[in-house]
Amino acid sequence: MIQAPRGTRDFPPDEMAYRRWAEGIMRRNAELFGYGEVSTPTFESLELFTLKSGPGIIDEIYAFKDKGGRDLALRPELTAPVMRMVVNSMRSAPKPIKLFYLGNCFRYDRPQSGRYREFFQFGVEVVGADTPAADAEIIALAIKNIKDLGLEDFRVKVGHIGAIRGALNVIEELPKEKHTEILQALDKERYEEVEEILVKYCGENDASVKVKVLEHVISITDIDELEKQDATTADHLKEVLKHLSHYGFEQYCTIDMSVVRGLDYYTGMVFEIEAPALGAEKQICGGGAYSLIKLLGGGDIPSTGFAIGFDRVLLALEKEGKRPGIGRKGLYILRAGSVPYEDMVGLAARLRLSGIPVDFPLSDRSLSKGMKYASSLKYPYVAIMGEEEWEGGKITLRDMATGEQETLSVEELIDRFV
Amino acid sequence: MIQAPRGTRDFPPDEMAYRRWAEGIMRRNAELFGYGEVSTPTFESLELFTLKSGPGIIDEIYAFKDKGGRDLALRPELTAPVMRMVVNSMRSAPKPIKLFYLGNCFRYDRPQSGRYREFFQFGVEVVGADTPAADAEIIALAIKNIKDLGLEDFRVKVGHIGAIRGALNVIEELPKEKHTEILQALDKERYEEVEEILVKYCGENDASVKVKVLEHVISITDIDELEKQDATTADHLKEVLKHLSHYGFEQYCTIDMSVVRGLDYYTGMVFEIEAPALGAEKQICGGGAYSLIKLLGGGDIPSTGFAIGFDRVLLALEKEGKRPGIGRKGLYILRAGSVPYEDMVGLAARLRLSGIPVDFPLSDRSLSKGMKYASSLKYPYVAIMGEEEWEGGKITLRDMATGEQETLSVEELIDRFV
Repeated sequence: MIQAPRGTRDFPPDEMAYRRWAEGIMRRNAELFGYGEVSTPTFESLELFTLKSGPGIIDEIYAFKDKGGRDLALRPELTAPVMRMVVNSMRSAPKPIKLFYLGNCFRYDRPQSGRYREFFQFGVEVVGADTPAADAEIIALAIKNIKDLGLEDFRVKVGHIGAIRGALNVIEELPKEKHTEILQALDKERYEEVEEILVKYCGENDASVKVKVLEHVISITDIDELEKQDATTADHLKEVLKHLSHYGFEQYCTIDMSVVRGLDYYTGMVFEIEAPALGAEKQICGGGAYSLIKLLGGGDIPSTGFAIGFDRVLLALEKEGKRPGIGRKGLYILRAGSVPYEDMVGLAARLRLSGIPVDFPLSDRSLSKGMKYASSLKYPYVAIMGEEEWEGGKITLRDMATGEQETLSVEELIDRFV
Repeated sequence: MIQAPRGTRDFPPDEMAYRRWAEGIMRRNAELFGYGEVSTPTFESLELFTLKSGPGIIDEIYAFKDKGGRDLALRPELTAPVMRMVVNSMRSAPKPIKLFYLGNCFRYDRPQSGRYREFFQFGVEVVGADTPAADAEIIALAIKNIKDLGLEDFRVKVGHIGAIRGALNVIEELPKEKHTEILQALDKERYEEVEEILVKYCGENDASVKVKVLEHVISITDIDELEKQDATTADHLKEVLKHLSHYGFEQYCTIDMSVVRGLDYYTGMVFEIEAPALGAEKQICGGGAYSLIKLLGGGDIPSTGFAIGFDRVLLALEKEGKRPGIGRKGLYILRAGSVPYEDMVGLAARLRLSGIPVDFPLSDRSLSKGMKYASSLKYPYVAIMGEEEWEGGKITLRDMATGEQETLSVEELIDRFV
């Protein structure tokens, strides 16, 4: 028997209803905040991703050649594709360009809890603004999404790449192109690696002192402490927090300079949201201000954005026991044996055309079998066309939860459900 | 500059709004008819598709090996994946299982008008029923989708594979395994090919007579004529049309035995919907009763279903000039220079938290530049925080279409838009 490929999933109706519910919340929120939805191809030129993340990414993604010999890759993330789209076809759009997306991404990863080879991301990008207002807005949108889904235990760590970059810039012996390596090592808390690089360029003694300085900067979790280290960065983040207070969301945020987000293209505010319920894989959202458009051949346009790990947020909700039950709507129609089948077809058609979700047996089936089917599919109501009633044009409506029954005309039934 | 891969598309916000509108119609209709949404992985084991369509399909699809050496393929269609899912995990679900999907598919095809390498399909599958009621229901759902989108010129050709299979079964000399080849040739109207096969098995003289018989059968477009050829098939289709009359949809349907749908797995009713506006590539929907589950290792369960070419239907709508304008909702907030920026952030937050879509400048910007931005993004309303008004807690609301302005309190503004 053929199975779904390793690390991928089938979503049956109850799972899809749950996912569409969550999507709907995120989509509505993005629209509330003035973002327009975009969608890009499932595969892209491999070059797009190596340009953004370096050739190392090839080991982690689905890369393949098409029949024309083109190097393609299933997209591992959506920021690069969306920025490519902006560069290709939205360059002259008035700024800021505010976009959101909800799409699938692919990584050739070891499948484990909350990690899939095909996974889903919701994200937004603001192109042409990295002001405190823009930074605050995306954090507010991320928090609103997570809160509206019902997740209770989450924390938002807000940092800024400026402070650590400032501290790196001070180390004159260190070539600029080594900054990324150090940022990546700091992000992963691999301090020995940081020290090794520094030893290479600054000598033995000095290196350990410098590592201490960097360690200190990324250990800052207090705005006053940050003020002493880097007043400009502190001012920016204070402004961000002030904006967030209008949403009542500053309470979820803590200043945390350890949010480094390894990648070279982050330029300012960076943030992460964690759901402790998920244990080791607790990050459910990450983002910040970045510069990517220039790398793709566009201008030097500041941007800011985030991506929420859609699957992980849903997993966190489930761990908190907050997954909502999304019931089937509408009713299932059954008839007593002597009522013509055709009458049932006609009633179903009429109700459907009135906008009421209904179903009925697609082949001849006994009343009791029909009831069992309706109940296993969790229809909240069953409409029974009983012999005598139907002669008078009436139907019995049964509430499947309470077992209560009442007799209604077709018009009354329509009025009830429309 | 990196481009989207050949044959793929980026969808900017106005395009996505249009697509989501169309998706919404199809999704709501599927729910009205009692279908539950499912989703399957973007890639599958290559074997799934060769099993269904033969090894020839490999030339037309994106097949690749993953890093573990597995033969995978980007899905070229969705019936086989959905049936795999049913066999894997829904075998014990009560029948009929009524599923729908809306997903992207991939073909390594020569890109042309209405044909993309990544394209989208909406489809339904009824597993466990191929009764006239089931056949009629899927045709009704397909027609309702197309009508609700607003397409006016379309025709539905309803055929049945039974009549032609019956005529083939009569030719005793012809091995059963040759039937598919003949069906495929008939589907493509390659009668010489049909004759060649028949000559091989039945001899010269007889062959041309037999081709004439087959040609006659597939030329039938009249239920009485069909009755003479194959009464069982005619009865089934009469029943289907009677069911469709409850929706008022029989008027769109014509009996047409030339709908052969080439593939081996069709077993009964088959239908196609065409939009003449599209010219040569006019087919926008195809489906019918089939048997596929057995091939995938499940039981011999009758099924029926269809797929609508989502991109083609939208293209047909555009050719008919029926593409709706989907405007932006909500309002854009601006302020006079002396009103604190922070007040605008606060007002925006309050409106958003009330469920009103709003946006405002993410950096300091003049009133006139702000108006230009709001107008280019087609905001229907702009709320202006004028200096004096705002001191009294009031805002000027400008209708961008008419230019009319009125002064409202924040509460009145909220009441207006919620």
